[in-house]
Amino acid sequence: MKSVNQVPPSNSNATGELASFIANSNWEDIPESVRHEGRRTLINYLASALGGCQEPAVQNSIAVLSQFSGTAEATLIGRSERLDILNASFINATASNLFDFDDTHFPTIIHPSAPVVPAVLALAERQHRSGQDMLHAQILGIEAECRLGLAVSPWHYAHGWHITSTCGVVGAAAAAGKMLGLDSQRMSVALSLGATQACGLLESLGTMAKSVSVGNAPRNGIVAAFLAKQGFLAAPNTLDGKYGFINVMGNKPNPGAILLELGSRWESARIAFKPYPCGIVLHPVIDALLALREEHELTTEKVTMVTVRAHPLLAQRTNRKSPRNGCEAQVSLQHVAAVCLMQGAAGILQFTDAYAIHHDVVDFGNRVEIQDDLNIAIDAADVTLRTSDGRILNKTIKHSLGSLGRPMSDAQLESKLRELAAYGAPGLATQPLIDAAWNIDRLPDAAVLAKLAQPIRA
Amino acid sequence: MKSVNQVPPSNSNATGELASFIANSNWEDIPESVRHEGRRTLINYLASALGGCQEPAVQNSIAVLSQFSGTAEATLIGRSERLDILNASFINATASNLFDFDDTHFPTIIHPSAPVVPAVLALAERQHRSGQDMLHAQILGIEAECRLGLAVSPWHYAHGWHITSTCGVVGAAAAAGKMLGLDSQRMSVALSLGATQACGLLESLGTMAKSVSVGNAPRNGIVAAFLAKQGFLAAPNTLDGKYGFINVMGNKPNPGAILLELGSRWESARIAFKPYPCGIVLHPVIDALLALREEHELTTEKVTMVTVRAHPLLAQRTNRKSPRNGCEAQVSLQHVAAVCLMQGAAGILQFTDAYAIHHDVVDFGNRVEIQDDLNIAIDAADVTLRTSDGRILNKTIKHSLGSLGRPMSDAQLESKLRELAAYGAPGLATQPLIDAAWNIDRLPDAAVLAKLAQPIRA
Repeated sequence: MKSVNQVPPSNSNATGELASFIANSNWEDIPESVRHEGRRTLINYLASALGGCQEPAVQNSIAVLSQFSGTAEATLIGRSERLDILNASFINATASNLFDFDDTHFPTIIHPSAPVVPAVLALAERQHRSGQDMLHAQILGIEAECRLGLAVSPWHYAHGWHITSTCGVVGAAAAAGKMLGLDSQRMSVALSLGATQACGLLESLGTMAKSVSVGNAPRNGIVAAFLAKQGFLAAPNTLDGKYGFINVMGNKPNPGAILLELGSRWESARIAFKPYPCGIVLHPVIDALLALREEHELTTEKVTMVTVRAHPLLAQRTNRKSPRNGCEAQVSLQHVAAVCLMQGAAGILQFTDAYAIHHDVVDFGNRVEIQDDLNIAIDAADVTLRTSDGRILNKTIKHSLGSLGRPMSDAQLESKLRELAAYGAPGLATQPLIDAAWNIDRLPDAAVLAKLAQPIRA
Repeated sequence: MKSVNQVPPSNSNATGELASFIANSNWEDIPESVRHEGRRTLINYLASALGGCQEPAVQNSIAVLSQFSGTAEATLIGRSERLDILNASFINATASNLFDFDDTHFPTIIHPSAPVVPAVLALAERQHRSGQDMLHAQILGIEAECRLGLAVSPWHYAHGWHITSTCGVVGAAAAAGKMLGLDSQRMSVALSLGATQACGLLESLGTMAKSVSVGNAPRNGIVAAFLAKQGFLAAPNTLDGKYGFINVMGNKPNPGAILLELGSRWESARIAFKPYPCGIVLHPVIDALLALREEHELTTEKVTMVTVRAHPLLAQRTNRKSPRNGCEAQVSLQHVAAVCLMQGAAGILQFTDAYAIHHDVVDFGNRVEIQDDLNIAIDAADVTLRTSDGRILNKTIKHSLGSLGRPMSDAQLESKLRELAAYGAPGLATQPLIDAAWNIDRLPDAAVLAKLAQPIRA
């Protein structure tokens, strides 16, 4: 039987209140500091999507989805093809989430931009909305996404849900709904239709399979918003009802987290951006190694021993001497120490499959030792090098670059975009894109932005 | 961090073994009795889709999705429009699942055909595969879907998952993969990509929101199969791994249920078809009332009291005197007693919103009483009527029509199709469609079937 008449009504009304907040939010309600974090999110999103836009998961997805594309109204970031907005948003989410390089909301481990930004980019391009509307919708979508994540964390991810996908589709529905100008009631439906499409198993991580739920997040969020606008109806408590998202996909769920200080505390302004495409616990080690190499003009030949003192989590997650591929190299302290000292860099080029199994890199791993120290914070590290000429060199990092305590600067985000564009979309003129992203909320037609992310055909 | 290197490998290999079974299955392996149940499933699917094809959820979905449709390669059952196969499968799944009238796999409460049949219909039409291939893929897809359901039942549904949607996308991926001729390894990927898209919250039941996850099931299953064919990779245990479907979406999961007697016991041949579009516990009551009315030429005026003795579940689920709309009428004993005795029917026309609140119908509800009897089976009922001329009339139903103990006959399924076509697609020539469905595995090009389900434009 399909009736659920026996279900008692929910006491909370997080779905409706969140919907009202989003529907009634005005641009003037968004503090400038939050707006600026939104612009930084956009730059970092574009960087990540440009970096990933040539990867096999993207190529395969385009080969399949282009067979079923409607009118080609939307740009694929970094590529010359165009697809309909649903399929384009799938591709643009996938591309940005392929390397371990997109943004992170630490309390939930959500990568917020992959599901949300492709949705607003595609709708901006199709509907020719202003950049202010686009940035506003992006900020609200990410806010909804991260707050929903808070309501089910940490159990949700630990249990096996790919939280970027599951919460992402709701955030995308919120952002798309805002782009379509939904009122509170229809926004509640959009959130509900997003929630009932929430999926993504952790088992898929580390394989292309992850891309399917990530790609579906903006696609299905856009569909949710259009269906809501068209007159679809939904239960009023699909986020917080008895059989709603939070209860079904959470344990000890906390729907209050969705509403707490809504409008005064902005989760969307607490997003970190990664300078290195590898496990976050390795970042302070990389900071220390790169600084030591530069200060002392080191090369691997001069270094006989690397001693890393860090929180025990570092050893648990990254004590991995002979990674078999780039994916494992991303969580190998030994690999990271080698490439930092050999190349003075820990960028996308240093985590290829080829580097992971390179003889010199693997060989250097024998010179790395780890010491656990519970008194050291997770985003800190203490690194000591011994050199062949008898020196002992030390560097302590208190907050790694890219942590909330020491965020990447605007200039560093620009460099990241340039570096990733050079990797995934060589030849793209990056400066106009960067300028447009910083000035997004002054663009009368936000469609300009996506077009600047498309290389000119030779 | 995105790596899951710390996860120990799963001991079971249900994903791989199920994939091999599907990929290596030959038509000759399917017993004739199972094939015939497959044909009956097809007839019942077509009946349900024809009945639902004009409903608001379908109309709204078409209005939205047709804006983003690719090449119109597939029929919408009962309608003149055509869409690309992904969007057509969405619509055709939604239409068949709108009334409480599609098929039921009782051990799991899955409605198996809504996700699977639209996937094979659309692919048959696009790829011009034989009807034998289509029916074969349908049977295997439903088998996969129901067995996955067994592995997580009953907790999965009780916890809040709309099992038709969640298991349906995996069944659709299996069926679509078979249609595309995937080998074992790629079939395993298709199942995995289906599993990682599994979603659908029970909170959405009773509203149009349900249609979104039901519609996505065949759509996303088809995409999963195409991506697998294109070279996508996935973890080998996405059904039964630590962070796979069964563990994440089940409690005390039983992956062995997927493989037990696979190939010798056919869940796809244990599917029930409903003669009445309302709660299944009401069916034996309807059987008794319709029989009494016919045998004794009764009308409501002659009946002063209806006493129903039944399993306590009947009262729990359906003691509902004044239903507010058609949806509530579907689970109202009082409503059912009134329409059966007033109209001698309990078809789709008897469960409209208008009938639910009709004065005479509501008024009759006062003459109905229920007696709990734990010794009566759920698909049985004992009904006693008192008439104004002093008679006491009794009827006992041991197995309701449509239960596995007393299935609808082939002829009754044909009548159901004709009745529902008259409701949703008046003017459609039903006999050629019925003939083609019974002869599906003799059709060299199964595309014929869907075309016969499309009314000729006037």
